[in-house]
Amino acid sequence: MADRAALEEAVRLQGERVRGLKLQKAGAELIEEEVSKLLKLKAELGSDEGKQKFVLKTPKGTRDYSPRQMAVREKVFDVIISCFKRHGAEVIDTPVFELKETLTGKYGEDSKLIYDLKDQGGELLALRYDLTVPFARYLAMNKLTNIKRYHIAKVYRRDNPAMTRGRYREFYQCDFDIAGQFDPMIPDAECLKIICEILSALQLGDFLIKVNDRRILDGMFNVCGVPDSKFRTICSSVDKLDKMSWEDVKNEMVEEKSLAPEVADLIGAYVKQHGGVSLVEQLLQDPKLSQNKQALEGLGDLKLLFEYLTLFGITEKITFDLSLARGLDYYTGVIYEAVLLQAPAKQGEEPLGVGSVAAGGRYDGLVGMFDPKGRKVPCVGLSIGVERIFSIVEQRMEASEEKVRTTETQVLVAAAQKKLLEERLKLVAELWDRGIKVWMKNPGRKSPVLPWSLQAELLYKKNPKLLTQLQYCEETGIPLVAIIGEQELKDGVVKLRSVASREEVDIRKENLVEEIRRRTSQYPPHLLN
Amino acid sequence: MADRAALEEAVRLQGERVRGLKLQKAGAELIEEEVSKLLKLKAELGSDEGKQKFVLKTPKGTRDYSPRQMAVREKVFDVIISCFKRHGAEVIDTPVFELKETLTGKYGEDSKLIYDLKDQGGELLALRYDLTVPFARYLAMNKLTNIKRYHIAKVYRRDNPAMTRGRYREFYQCDFDIAGQFDPMIPDAECLKIICEILSALQLGDFLIKVNDRRILDGMFNVCGVPDSKFRTICSSVDKLDKMSWEDVKNEMVEEKSLAPEVADLIGAYVKQHGGVSLVEQLLQDPKLSQNKQALEGLGDLKLLFEYLTLFGITEKITFDLSLARGLDYYTGVIYEAVLLQAPAKQGEEPLGVGSVAAGGRYDGLVGMFDPKGRKVPCVGLSIGVERIFSIVEQRMEASEEKVRTTETQVLVAAAQKKLLEERLKLVAELWDRGIKVWMKNPGRKSPVLPWSLQAELLYKKNPKLLTQLQYCEETGIPLVAIIGEQELKDGVVKLRSVASREEVDIRKENLVEEIRRRTSQYPPHLLN
Repeated sequence: MADRAALEEAVRLQGERVRGLKLQKAGAELIEEEVSKLLKLKAELGSDEGKQKFVLKTPKGTRDYSPRQMAVREKVFDVIISCFKRHGAEVIDTPVFELKETLTGKYGEDSKLIYDLKDQGGELLALRYDLTVPFARYLAMNKLTNIKRYHIAKVYRRDNPAMTRGRYREFYQCDFDIAGQFDPMIPDAECLKIICEILSALQLGDFLIKVNDRRILDGMFNVCGVPDSKFRTICSSVDKLDKMSWEDVKNEMVEEKSLAPEVADLIGAYVKQHGGVSLVEQLLQDPKLSQNKQALEGLGDLKLLFEYLTLFGITEKITFDLSLARGLDYYTGVIYEAVLLQAPAKQGEEPLGVGSVAAGGRYDGLVGMFDPKGRKVPCVGLSIGVERIFSIVEQRMEASEEKVRTTETQVLVAAAQKKLLEERLKLVAELWDRGIKVWMKNPGRKSPVLPWSLQAELLYKKNPKLLTQLQYCEETGIPLVAIIGEQELKDGVVKLRSVASREEVDIRKENLVEEIRRRTSQYPPHLLN
Repeated sequence: MADRAALEEAVRLQGERVRGLKLQKAGAELIEEEVSKLLKLKAELGSDEGKQKFVLKTPKGTRDYSPRQMAVREKVFDVIISCFKRHGAEVIDTPVFELKETLTGKYGEDSKLIYDLKDQGGELLALRYDLTVPFARYLAMNKLTNIKRYHIAKVYRRDNPAMTRGRYREFYQCDFDIAGQFDPMIPDAECLKIICEILSALQLGDFLIKVNDRRILDGMFNVCGVPDSKFRTICSSVDKLDKMSWEDVKNEMVEEKSLAPEVADLIGAYVKQHGGVSLVEQLLQDPKLSQNKQALEGLGDLKLLFEYLTLFGITEKITFDLSLARGLDYYTGVIYEAVLLQAPAKQGEEPLGVGSVAAGGRYDGLVGMFDPKGRKVPCVGLSIGVERIFSIVEQRMEASEEKVRTTETQVLVAAAQKKLLEERLKLVAELWDRGIKVWMKNPGRKSPVLPWSLQAELLYKKNPKLLTQLQYCEETGIPLVAIIGEQELKDGVVKLRSVASREEVDIRKENLVEEIRRRTSQYPPHLLN
């Protein structure tokens, strides 16, 4: 009851202070109004003194994507999305901001990194911090108990950005999650398979996926004699073992977190271990761990997981690592993190350091936090670290001589002489329309790059020189030029020029579309049969 | 010099007030800190009183996209992006927020609809209001004088949403713009061609594109006797003619904006006119308009525009409409707006009303506002009203019986008896890996739905019933089932079942991938040759 009284007093005090704050705010608003009036006056008076000075930049920690960077981004996303779809995932999207209270109490200390929107009347809003909490909110709100979905979108953290390493305040997350009550470890194994497929397809070099289980960690802390109240904080010390030596981590446990040194040493003996399924077997026989129910459950599930990973043929990419702890509080079972095994630095590349490029785990309690009745929906998922991957691919492209195209134009419609603008406009429209007409007859569901769609351009000049037109193709990587001249018009042909070989052939106008398509098709017919 | 003294005094006063404001702010922060401490205390004390109550919703004016809605969104975007690419456009992206000052002074009265971020220290930020101002900032910042780009992204307006009509506070814009100094009307004509291609391909029903020119409007106001200072406000009255009668618009001009009634009548005589190129010719002969330099330039350019539109074969979709004014201040030349000609309401559909589904125009001054030296980069562009289009397509789908698939899974790997989980896992991994392996050998730049990638699923149960597995296919639209049983394993075959026809055929395991691909290919080979 003393607590109750303290609470009531606290609430009363709070009320008084809020009222004071409101008054103060009203005063501040009056002053702001005055200031804005004066600034306006100044602007008006100063308007003849030259143009206003803008700071021409994007906000701190953000960037524009140039067409070149977009080409990298699209390439990486294509690989990832194609994999998510291969595994039968649906896709959802959520707003960029959430009610402030939706995010409250989900991120622990990191909550200070959340971007709040200004209170302009109405609801209090904040930019999303990740895609997992909005996903849990979405499941609870729509009472879904069962979904396999991916979500690719930007999230926002007021962190100190290290942009050369691909760390920004606005950055993409690529999440794939399986929600639902299923037989153990089958969806978990598929998540690991997906990480393997994506990292292989992106050809980032050799990688390894560390696997552990929160229950094994908790069981280990228990048998080592860590007090229950210190599980999370000792867990976060263990999580630093990828950046700090054991000595430093032990020091943190003992000095900062007042753990008995002999307890720390017991932990040390465990977390130094990593290996394959044989380590799981060994720990199942461990005289202490095998007495702990949680650890036993975790180890049993890991054994099953390894069986499935063997069937998937990916065990050589997996290591059971007792030092893997993962920062987020919401994990409840298996956790994993993929790291590149060597800095992907070739000649001329800045080394990016070894680092995590994918991670995830099982979180069976998060959805229940949103459900009014606390109903749980078990979830397991993964997140691909695409910003880091963009950085690696971009640096690789900078270093290589490979020319990156930023458009998909197949042909430039060009004129050999003056006064042919009309003919050029007619021909380019024919090429554009051909795509539309075929598409209208075959409105397949998917068609960003239909093999029968013709991408064509012309220069926006009445009488461009032929050389200017050919140079434009060289610069932008357009492979073909359809050249019209007086003679070609008379003969009913178009001169088709290959930019690379400089060969020119007269093609009858009625065969032009097919010839261009034949020469630029991205899907050679033999691959389709 | 009196002005100068007033300015200096104003600046001094402002300085004093800002200092006062800072003190006040520091005080307010102290109080906020106290309040937050108390709230924390309250939360801790109250933690045993049951679960916290969340309001389970998205912020006002926003929505989640379900997998079904995402299917519509992807379909619409595919058509639009494929058209932008067909015309050789690059793609860029910009951050979701900009420095507050980047947006200041660009949107007139609508500035009050901008979402500001809370001042959490550092820069003052606001969510982007459209994609045009960030584009102009991008051009000026990177000193680009020449680009053809598209940008598809969400923008934010604190408007009163009418969500059933596809109006939200968070909504997509799909912009295509051509920046650069070119020969007149060639890029402008291409923008109109693009609108025609997209609206045709989306099959939204008949449409019309109204075209006008800001210079014709200004010239008309001039010869009618509108005072220079009233051009913009009278222009915004004219803009209402699509929603209001001429009588009401005239009333607004005369009563609210103090225009002489006879001047209004002169305007009325002009803005009632619409037609094709013959109306342009007629106005070029108009005794008053033909004396106005601006109007003459606008009419001359429109005449040229119609010539190009004839070559593109789209004049029947275009109408020269003197009442089209467009709201935004920044247009400087040709302007256009596409409207659907009839409410796309079929049986069971709620009528959506006739409305604008695309718009744009020429804005030659905006980039100069960002350039420190005021250098101009002429621009012309268009914006597709996708949210409205999503609503139309969604309603049409609701009304039709057509089943929409939300995944692309081609085959479910199923078992006919118990204890075949291992065999199922092995087979599904083979199907997934086949896609990867072919892709690794042919890493084409584009590949979201490679014809040779196999999308496969299995149920996450150890021993699912065959009926359960078949029902899953019915529900999700998976067309094929690869069934494993004891006998099939012995014979080295897989039973391939068509879900629609229920036919089953034994296929040798080494031919399975090809057979599935053959049956589910989206690109029939004859269309590729």
